[in-house]
Amino acid sequence: MTSNSSPDIWIYDTTLRDGTQREGLSLSMEDKLRIAQRLDQLGVPFIEGGWPGANPKDVQFFWQLQEEPLKQAEIVAFCSTRRPNTSAADEPMLQAILAAGTRWVTIFGKSWDLHVTESLKTTLAENLAMIRDTIEYLRAQGRRVIYDAEHWFDGYKQNRDYALQTLQAAHIAGAEWLVLCDTNGGTLPHEISQIVESVNIYFSSSTMTIPQLGIHTHNDCDTAVANTIASVMAGVKMVQGTMNGYGERCGNANLCSLIPNLQLKLGYDCIALHELSQLTETSRFISEVVNLAPDEHAPFVGRSAFAHKGGIHVSAVERNPLTYEHIHPEQIGNSRRIVISEQAGVSNVLAKARTFGIELDKQNPQVREILQRLKDLESEGYQFEAAEASFELLMRQALGKRPSFFEIKGFQVHCDLVEPKEAANALATVKLTVNGKNILEAAEGNGPVAALDAALRKALVNFYPQIAAFELSDYKVRILNGHMGTAAKTRVLVESRNGQQRWMTVGVSTNILEASYQAVVEGLEYGLLLHSSVEALLSVSRDSA
Amino acid sequence: MTSNSSPDIWIYDTTLRDGTQREGLSLSMEDKLRIAQRLDQLGVPFIEGGWPGANPKDVQFFWQLQEEPLKQAEIVAFCSTRRPNTSAADEPMLQAILAAGTRWVTIFGKSWDLHVTESLKTTLAENLAMIRDTIEYLRAQGRRVIYDAEHWFDGYKQNRDYALQTLQAAHIAGAEWLVLCDTNGGTLPHEISQIVESVNIYFSSSTMTIPQLGIHTHNDCDTAVANTIASVMAGVKMVQGTMNGYGERCGNANLCSLIPNLQLKLGYDCIALHELSQLTETSRFISEVVNLAPDEHAPFVGRSAFAHKGGIHVSAVERNPLTYEHIHPEQIGNSRRIVISEQAGVSNVLAKARTFGIELDKQNPQVREILQRLKDLESEGYQFEAAEASFELLMRQALGKRPSFFEIKGFQVHCDLVEPKEAANALATVKLTVNGKNILEAAEGNGPVAALDAALRKALVNFYPQIAAFELSDYKVRILNGHMGTAAKTRVLVESRNGQQRWMTVGVSTNILEASYQAVVEGLEYGLLLHSSVEALLSVSRDSA
Repeated sequence: MTSNSSPDIWIYDTTLRDGTQREGLSLSMEDKLRIAQRLDQLGVPFIEGGWPGANPKDVQFFWQLQEEPLKQAEIVAFCSTRRPNTSAADEPMLQAILAAGTRWVTIFGKSWDLHVTESLKTTLAENLAMIRDTIEYLRAQGRRVIYDAEHWFDGYKQNRDYALQTLQAAHIAGAEWLVLCDTNGGTLPHEISQIVESVNIYFSSSTMTIPQLGIHTHNDCDTAVANTIASVMAGVKMVQGTMNGYGERCGNANLCSLIPNLQLKLGYDCIALHELSQLTETSRFISEVVNLAPDEHAPFVGRSAFAHKGGIHVSAVERNPLTYEHIHPEQIGNSRRIVISEQAGVSNVLAKARTFGIELDKQNPQVREILQRLKDLESEGYQFEAAEASFELLMRQALGKRPSFFEIKGFQVHCDLVEPKEAANALATVKLTVNGKNILEAAEGNGPVAALDAALRKALVNFYPQIAAFELSDYKVRILNGHMGTAAKTRVLVESRNGQQRWMTVGVSTNILEASYQAVVEGLEYGLLLHSSVEALLSVSRDSA
Repeated sequence: MTSNSSPDIWIYDTTLRDGTQREGLSLSMEDKLRIAQRLDQLGVPFIEGGWPGANPKDVQFFWQLQEEPLKQAEIVAFCSTRRPNTSAADEPMLQAILAAGTRWVTIFGKSWDLHVTESLKTTLAENLAMIRDTIEYLRAQGRRVIYDAEHWFDGYKQNRDYALQTLQAAHIAGAEWLVLCDTNGGTLPHEISQIVESVNIYFSSSTMTIPQLGIHTHNDCDTAVANTIASVMAGVKMVQGTMNGYGERCGNANLCSLIPNLQLKLGYDCIALHELSQLTETSRFISEVVNLAPDEHAPFVGRSAFAHKGGIHVSAVERNPLTYEHIHPEQIGNSRRIVISEQAGVSNVLAKARTFGIELDKQNPQVREILQRLKDLESEGYQFEAAEASFELLMRQALGKRPSFFEIKGFQVHCDLVEPKEAANALATVKLTVNGKNILEAAEGNGPVAALDAALRKALVNFYPQIAAFELSDYKVRILNGHMGTAAKTRVLVESRNGQQRWMTVGVSTNILEASYQAVVEGLEYGLLLHSSVEALLSVSRDSA
């Protein structure tokens, strides 16, 4: 899509409204602004900002956007139709939506007769009047209107004629878009196709103008994306959804899957190609803002979406990516990743070595040695898929390229807890050799691993001052054979960082402290290795200067 | 479906083979056995167990299943066709699959000409011979064969005639099922429908018998479930997938969504209704065994799948559930959940107390106290959903119904490791009071928690000989705020058993040893409580005799 032409499909993001219905997700006004600005950058043409009539925080959000308007997106305020037996002009919710000051508003109304009589407790005729009055009133105030037909598909299945009358009322009253909502998420793709087609037939066989249709689906059947695609193939031109599929219950249709499917697989223009290549980053940015761990297995944008494990896969994908990849990951800003695991073959090891800047020959007997060592360690419970730093150390060991920064001679840990409870105290002692010197050091911590980490750093920082900038940033524990109770093996993964880089290391033992100690020690060692490579590079550049 | 009739759709689970391709998922042989037994209980007719030719751990798994056969499911061994330019009888992988001793085997072969020439580096004719020979050889050895046509949809799109020839080869050689695989997951539902229909037309317009077709999809487009449904609607009778959608990259088609969609929405018999009602529990059991947090937002089986937030929803859903629920959650063993309002909390506590045989009145101020204590502990990181024994102890404490079996005064743990490495040794000392007597006891173990557990048992067994029958049967650790590194909080769940019953307890602390100790101590205490209730019952029955 070029920036001047209309898209084939209009993307309508409701992360900030329907997305926040997800259990455990709540956003400050600043969070909402950051997300809106990022969606604007992504080229999304409609961003639903909230329901100012129901949520005071949303009122402020719209005011703030009047101060700092978005670059290209229309920000949309959301509201229900007026209540039964009132007038639109006297409805406070509609005053609030007008005060939001947006050009576009979305109004939702009831399509399902059961909801009209059971939830609204009014008549079918009054519901039609509520839809009509509300839209006419907002049109008279100069607003452009999108109409969300709530419970559309269920309503249609129960009382087809009445459901169609509600759409007709909204259309005649001046709504520019009629959006068919599968509010309960219970509809399957073939039903969606049939019902959207019958709406098209209804309007094209009437004397009315033909309205533009939209779709809004939920993922309760695990088919929200397919439902949306089915409706687009039946002629729908607006797609509502949320980033990362956030939403009530099982979530809304996921725009991170829909946009690439529509654009790359089906050839509909939605956003510009340079915007599409920001999709992965935008997805991760939003998961950071809402403070939910990104789904690593998410289609298109997940960290594992283009990860390759098996050895056959890896050699084939390197020759011709399309043998094992359904799209080029770069198109959406994601990237291919080679995973090291039990199923690894020689080609994985070679590919991995290359990413560490080590060129190995397939015939090199050390490659088989590395592979064997890897398999032995994995059968003991080690896992290198995440712990790439430990894998690099293992590989360097086999190749004689692992520098010796220090040698650990032993450690001791002591914990005690006395009732009535005080904080449990832990004390660790480590013994090591650096450059031929013996060091004995001790430190305390609020747990045994913290004490061990502190003692190691104390012992090493005088020799390697860069250690002061290392930080242990994540710590994961997994019990491998839990049914063996406390005799079970433990695997510990440690993530370290130094300000610029992050790296992960692994340790395994029946003793959780030993497993932790292995991972912590390798984390420090790898950090020193990174630092020494930088030093070496710097000294080369100084020499050549 | 009654147990004697054939299902309309045959469910084929590949959690134990394709599911384990998920990054970060690796299973011990014991894990695999537990999952297979649970899937057998769920009524899944085919369970793919692994690839014995590629993975030594899988060989043992099949041997073990010969000792303890499943009740109703067919366990299936998986393998590729023979390699190019060899004979099937000399292919070691095929010897391994025969040694697995299963009635059914699944053989995968290439459908895509590009993969034949690029990955296998052989001729199109040799690939057809490989498919034919392999299946004929296995048929001659008395095996029933399922043929997985790898990369079927991509192959069909590139070279339709050759792709169809590969299917024909497998069919003529005696495969009873031809399974169409979307290996790269790049196909959308409408293409699946068209291609499956064209396979039907191909076979029905030939002189061959018509084969039974199966489907195997991946979720790279976020449409795996819809793709499978589309192919079933086009006549496919076998559905391959994994529990919780585990699998490489973005996962496989999720059986937890497919089974209810096929059975409840589309009316195909798959498993019996009483088995379907175990679906949610089975999903969660498997996520525990593989040690991945369950997806709370998963369709059908997620904890949030039938959660209601707003007040209008709640009152409407209570009057008529179908206003906001697309199916009855009980059908799949899930339940409606009203998201925490204080009132919902009180009724939860009352309902929970009732399951422990304690009748409480809604007005009882202790109920609010329990609720408050529960909320405080949950905000510290405790979780009682799994640890019901700890929750019962908490409730008894508040009600003055928690007997005192022992009082812990303190513990000390000491670990040391000396390089060159020997087994790490741990020594624990515990101090406690039983019936006014002070006890000091020490024990060793191969890790600090094992040592602590041993010391506690040694100290208590003279007073409570029943402790000798208690066993610590599972031990899980989760780091709650991993980004705080070694200062993170740790939650430990311990499962104990006594031969008849199992119970779970929880502990939380920044010190992993303290968290473990809390859970282990409550596990012993709860076991004694169970035993004393039995004693009390026995003494009543003796009195009344």
